[in-house]
Amino acid sequence: MTVTSWVPVPEGSDFPLANLPYGVFEPAGEPARVGVAIGEHVLDLAAVLGDEVFAQPSLNAFMAQGKQSWQQTRARITEMLTEESHRGTVEPALHRRDEVRLLLPFEVADYVDFYASEQHASNIGRMFRPDSPPLMPNWKHLPVGYHGRAGTVVASETPIVRPSGQRKPPQAEAPAFGPSQRLDIEAEVGFVVGAGSELGTPVSTEDFAEHVFGVCLVNDWSARDIQAWEYVPLGPFLGKSFATSVSPWIVPLDALQQARVPTPDQDPQPLPYLREDRPWGLDLAMEVSLNDEVVARPPFEALYWSPAQQLAHMTVNGASLRTGDFYASGTVSGSETDQRGSLIELSWNGENPLTLKDGSQRVFLADGDTVTIRATAPGADGTRIGFGEVTGTILPAREES
Amino acid sequence: MTVTSWVPVPEGSDFPLANLPYGVFEPAGEPARVGVAIGEHVLDLAAVLGDEVFAQPSLNAFMAQGKQSWQQTRARITEMLTEESHRGTVEPALHRRDEVRLLLPFEVADYVDFYASEQHASNIGRMFRPDSPPLMPNWKHLPVGYHGRAGTVVASETPIVRPSGQRKPPQAEAPAFGPSQRLDIEAEVGFVVGAGSELGTPVSTEDFAEHVFGVCLVNDWSARDIQAWEYVPLGPFLGKSFATSVSPWIVPLDALQQARVPTPDQDPQPLPYLREDRPWGLDLAMEVSLNDEVVARPPFEALYWSPAQQLAHMTVNGASLRTGDFYASGTVSGSETDQRGSLIELSWNGENPLTLKDGSQRVFLADGDTVTIRATAPGADGTRIGFGEVTGTILPAREES
Repeated sequence: MTVTSWVPVPEGSDFPLANLPYGVFEPAGEPARVGVAIGEHVLDLAAVLGDEVFAQPSLNAFMAQGKQSWQQTRARITEMLTEESHRGTVEPALHRRDEVRLLLPFEVADYVDFYASEQHASNIGRMFRPDSPPLMPNWKHLPVGYHGRAGTVVASETPIVRPSGQRKPPQAEAPAFGPSQRLDIEAEVGFVVGAGSELGTPVSTEDFAEHVFGVCLVNDWSARDIQAWEYVPLGPFLGKSFATSVSPWIVPLDALQQARVPTPDQDPQPLPYLREDRPWGLDLAMEVSLNDEVVARPPFEALYWSPAQQLAHMTVNGASLRTGDFYASGTVSGSETDQRGSLIELSWNGENPLTLKDGSQRVFLADGDTVTIRATAPGADGTRIGFGEVTGTILPAREES
Repeated sequence: MTVTSWVPVPEGSDFPLANLPYGVFEPAGEPARVGVAIGEHVLDLAAVLGDEVFAQPSLNAFMAQGKQSWQQTRARITEMLTEESHRGTVEPALHRRDEVRLLLPFEVADYVDFYASEQHASNIGRMFRPDSPPLMPNWKHLPVGYHGRAGTVVASETPIVRPSGQRKPPQAEAPAFGPSQRLDIEAEVGFVVGAGSELGTPVSTEDFAEHVFGVCLVNDWSARDIQAWEYVPLGPFLGKSFATSVSPWIVPLDALQQARVPTPDQDPQPLPYLREDRPWGLDLAMEVSLNDEVVARPPFEALYWSPAQQLAHMTVNGASLRTGDFYASGTVSGSETDQRGSLIELSWNGENPLTLKDGSQRVFLADGDTVTIRATAPGADGTRIGFGEVTGTILPAREES
């Protein structure tokens, strides 16, 4: 028997009772605080639980309490939303979701971006190193990753100003300065660390769920021309650091137990610290829209390295975790041409421009373009766990002063 | 006439009245708070200024107040330490420096590491790409940099556990896991951002002193073998992220006005956003000791890109700054063989091992080794501004579990 909430949840809602993702919301004229999405509503946790950790404009204080507290809180919320006896006290704490502002749900400590999709890494290799093997020699031995800029992780709906910078076409003698002409998206999935760890102590794949609080969607905007000129030998910097957008709802790992799937076969077998008894592959069906038109459906289940493997790798040198650490999968691409999570792959570096329904063509993003990423996963009792969406619109580059 | 303090300042002290660097100190059994170093003492600012921003275990709240507040506070402290009339109230707030614990002085927001020494970048190029030009094509057009791990920036004296990770010697078929065998130092200078900036608005070279609060010393510990295997194509990650040590005292820019020098000639001329009317080159004489024996004296004045150019570059794409953002110069090396700021350069990748006074040799760090970096700069009235020191001792790798 499926347990249902006394709060009406429309058919097909992203936020059934089995989901209960956490976010930070701001009712008009009131301070921002922590809430949980249910159907068309947001439940004000500060109001119904009376705990200080929810009366804050970030999830960090709650996340820092650790897994036992996360599970107790989830059980308590489920009880309040299902038992009619709570209705009288809980109903006044429900806000219509379309009447509140949703903010960046957590304060980002460190931000790491991985490169964990074999299809994405291979596509990039094939485009830019056509005479070499598509994957670098290290790629199947470790989840390649790098640190990004935490301070420019922004809430969904934040406008994205086209960045300017140095770029040098291969035939040019010297670099020129100006707005990026190759502005791209990267459709990714992000993992939010709740419970930190000690400096010097690696976190094993088995302890993934002790540390990771939940999952959201990420658009890691990328200026391919700035990146191409700057990235040798220390990696991407300004080509990525202008903005990274995240979805407002953090889906708890407990809502994703039915979405767990094996990762693809890993050959060669990874070193012991990267092995998982029961892998944390996740069956998330992603959907990338450009101006309300779906342009790609990347399958997260195709990801080569699981988020637990990413976490184990990130800490195997003794690097500590802090509450609010955030890491993303890297662009998610599948093996089909319409499953690629970036425009550079979808247009094959300009060889096959996308033609939109209005007849216009795209190789990279135009000013005014809006990109939205959504995803769903199988939930308990045949339900569907939705991630909401991360969206952003490109504004023209700043006038040079 | 040189103004002097009624607090005795020994000849040759790092901390004359012209310096007044800020730090966070913890007297035995009392809470940590903000202090200023003068001679052999630390002045408790919370006690003498009665302002909440100093009664905290980090400089961030004070730094966030901006340049006007930094200057007013410096003037007020100078007055208290010079006018005898204040002695009665101020003297009880002085702690002997050797009786307090010095902590990490600020909460690190984002950490960026540059690569701004031409001699260092050229040395690395000559060692690892002997058949190519030593500098990459982009190097003289922009200050190359990347994001490091903010959460593992640690206070001086924090023990450094030798990291383990994947490394693959060129002749090996597959990577092996184990303790780094090529553990190195990087002697750098760090810049602490006090006042943040708006997303989308670049910070010009002229506005450097509006945003940067002060300067400290950095040892960016590096596992060369881990880094060599992982860093293609996204840059250094675990080879650097296990620890970055910083000195406890943040020297205000106002103490360094006499240390300003031109940067080396920049040819080709940088793009307009990187130009400086009066460059922020700094005449810091650095000294690297291994087990109390000086092994290098890197000259910071040789740095190709100034810290103001680094800041302008870091934000030219619209990336915002936050209070606590931290960026370091990259390894500082001069043109002489004894001016190199890393062991890989000093030993020329093992070709010329260092022989220490005890007869032992080093190519990279051994367990038990202690590395200390110090620096001084010319100060007002012929004084010498000292930076104190950043030190750390290598502990053996963690036993594999």
